[in-house]
Amino acid sequence: MYADAVYDAGGRLIRTQGVTAPAGFRAAGIPAAIKANGNPDLALVFNEGPDLVAAGVFTTNKVKAAPVLWSQQVLTSRALRAVILNSGGANACTGPGGFQDTHATAEAVADALSNWGTETGAGEVAVCSTGLIGDRLPMDKVLAGVQEIVHELAGGISGGTDAAYAIMTTDTVPKQTALHHDDKWNVGGMAKGAGMLAPALATMLCVVTTDVVATADQLDTALRHATRLTFDRLDIDGATSTNDTVLLLASGASGITPTQDELDAAVLAVCDDLAAQMMADAEGVTKRVTVTVRGAASESDALIGARTVARDSLVKTALFGSDPNWGRVLAAIGIAPIELDPDKISVRFNGSPVCVDGVGAPGAREVDLSGIDIDLDIDLGIGDAEVSIRTTDLSHAYVEENSAYSS
Amino acid sequence: MYADAVYDAGGRLIRTQGVTAPAGFRAAGIPAAIKANGNPDLALVFNEGPDLVAAGVFTTNKVKAAPVLWSQQVLTSRALRAVILNSGGANACTGPGGFQDTHATAEAVADALSNWGTETGAGEVAVCSTGLIGDRLPMDKVLAGVQEIVHELAGGISGGTDAAYAIMTTDTVPKQTALHHDDKWNVGGMAKGAGMLAPALATMLCVVTTDVVATADQLDTALRHATRLTFDRLDIDGATSTNDTVLLLASGASGITPTQDELDAAVLAVCDDLAAQMMADAEGVTKRVTVTVRGAASESDALIGARTVARDSLVKTALFGSDPNWGRVLAAIGIAPIELDPDKISVRFNGSPVCVDGVGAPGAREVDLSGIDIDLDIDLGIGDAEVSIRTTDLSHAYVEENSAYSS
Repeated sequence: MYADAVYDAGGRLIRTQGVTAPAGFRAAGIPAAIKANGNPDLALVFNEGPDLVAAGVFTTNKVKAAPVLWSQQVLTSRALRAVILNSGGANACTGPGGFQDTHATAEAVADALSNWGTETGAGEVAVCSTGLIGDRLPMDKVLAGVQEIVHELAGGISGGTDAAYAIMTTDTVPKQTALHHDDKWNVGGMAKGAGMLAPALATMLCVVTTDVVATADQLDTALRHATRLTFDRLDIDGATSTNDTVLLLASGASGITPTQDELDAAVLAVCDDLAAQMMADAEGVTKRVTVTVRGAASESDALIGARTVARDSLVKTALFGSDPNWGRVLAAIGIAPIELDPDKISVRFNGSPVCVDGVGAPGAREVDLSGIDIDLDIDLGIGDAEVSIRTTDLSHAYVEENSAYSS
Repeated sequence: MYADAVYDAGGRLIRTQGVTAPAGFRAAGIPAAIKANGNPDLALVFNEGPDLVAAGVFTTNKVKAAPVLWSQQVLTSRALRAVILNSGGANACTGPGGFQDTHATAEAVADALSNWGTETGAGEVAVCSTGLIGDRLPMDKVLAGVQEIVHELAGGISGGTDAAYAIMTTDTVPKQTALHHDDKWNVGGMAKGAGMLAPALATMLCVVTTDVVATADQLDTALRHATRLTFDRLDIDGATSTNDTVLLLASGASGITPTQDELDAAVLAVCDDLAAQMMADAEGVTKRVTVTVRGAASESDALIGARTVARDSLVKTALFGSDPNWGRVLAAIGIAPIELDPDKISVRFNGSPVCVDGVGAPGAREVDLSGIDIDLDIDLGIGDAEVSIRTTDLSHAYVEENSAYSS
């Protein structure tokens, strides 16, 4: 299920395709001058139907951006015709005026699609925004961009890829993937997210599309199952953004109704691949780290333990220095509020034992961590539960990128 | 009560004095070749009496170093004749052999003091260690050092200062302070700690001495009151070490019995000054940051909120960049598991409003944070509780120092 998987869930994962891989979807991405640097900053994903079923998962942050509040409200109908996404501004902490901006954007998309030939209401349009918190969006540019982007909607590879580019902020590469199930039905997705990644989603926006026939309950089940095992287990710096949104839209255009298990597996595979792409492109990453806690008393304990280690600045700086400093791993797991026995903890770096039953193993200081991938495996030795969290090291580049973001 | 306070609790704080400022205490610090670089690495604090009353507070980490396990056991008698401290090795995660090393060290100190003329049992000797986790101590050097250090015990300024130097690891300056209460009784202290500072103490060792006449219960009350308000509110990186120890020893040599309030205030003033010195010397610090959460529903909410912001990597890197990025502050407080209303939160940097009722204030991006001291004040606007946490920025120097510590 990791970064290099190309086959899964009975299908092929292809990263050159995204939200337009399933039948019934068009997309576009354009520069609308929301970003000062002229890069693409506005994306639209359009569901041609026949079905308009949708599900969504949103940030758990109590401070929610205007587009999150809007999209949560829209999703109560469990149907979406379109998703409009912008980079260049988060529209978070912008008060009632910011919410009116989001509402006006959805209205403009609905009007433009209606004029274009598909009768659409604002209540069928989800809005996603990403960028700096606290500033109002340049609405003249957003609204002009909406008029333009409707005419750029395209199926095939190019539309989805353009959209994936337009939602990038500090991402260095677009992130998309598509799964083709026995060449009969498809799931495609795109995502952005490079910092503030954790713990329940991230400053991540993700749109997943599929051409299966499914109820909103089935989509919701598949999406929650997938996000719990993928984006929720990606923890770069413990930060959770105000704008996190993951949407799943189904067009029904394939005419196929998969089983819940098949749908779960396919959505999981797409989300897992997008999560791997986000880890690989996280801000300042020089190491791709998987922290596994096994032998825990419960899955909850394993998750809390792995997350605690994945967030520990002293562990993360040691990994940046390729230093197998297992003592910091024990100090980190020791503050996790979980059941543990210090004398039963064993630790491996890339398969090499560095600590056995709480005591250092011979040769522990000589384990080679100079490669880019690091597996940190912690066995608590008291139960059967196991969870892995994807994270990164804490590098000079992380400090550099995050100390100069808004200024 | 902050870094530059020199008068408090009816007395004068003098940083050129430490654990030997109170009557009845001697101390010493020597190089014993535990550290490879030849710097001082062994310290002894000796209580001449007449009283030997003591109290202690230890790490909350479930992974506890051998000296912590030993000293907790010794403290059940609520009396200490001496404290032996070493830098150059934490003696943590060293198994039963490591515990035997600690026991042997206490036995050696007891024997040496007995030979020197003060009958002492190993059960009256606390042991503190700091340094790299996971390696056994070079016991030949520790035991030879113990024989030597007993003969170096001195009162006055020099003994205490030598001890403060000998417990330094990545500290760049020794940390000590003394309070003279109306020239009648005294409290002195020394501490080390520069990284892994949080949340309940740190890789910090601290010995506080006093010449008052007090019961163990009175000392315990004063020490827990002081650590709760000082070391527990110093949070550099969310890490809590395996070795944290704070000890308070009373000799009774002044013959004075202060009230509990007087003792509490004096111990608090000494611990507060040592905590300020630790913040100022934290690894890689370029900014001294005080995060205050006020207007909270409860003190617990204020504490959790302030700690959450103080640990947020995106807030800390922004402060390193002198960037008044208040949106990250709102995103950080929004994930704290506390009662809050996003539309009532106001934020000030160094007194300047940057966010009022959840929305950016005019001029917010222009607030000057180029100085070394930053006050970050968050008003939740829903209650009366207030807590301040001391922290630092997240700088290149932090990454550098912590990526190269053990290798």
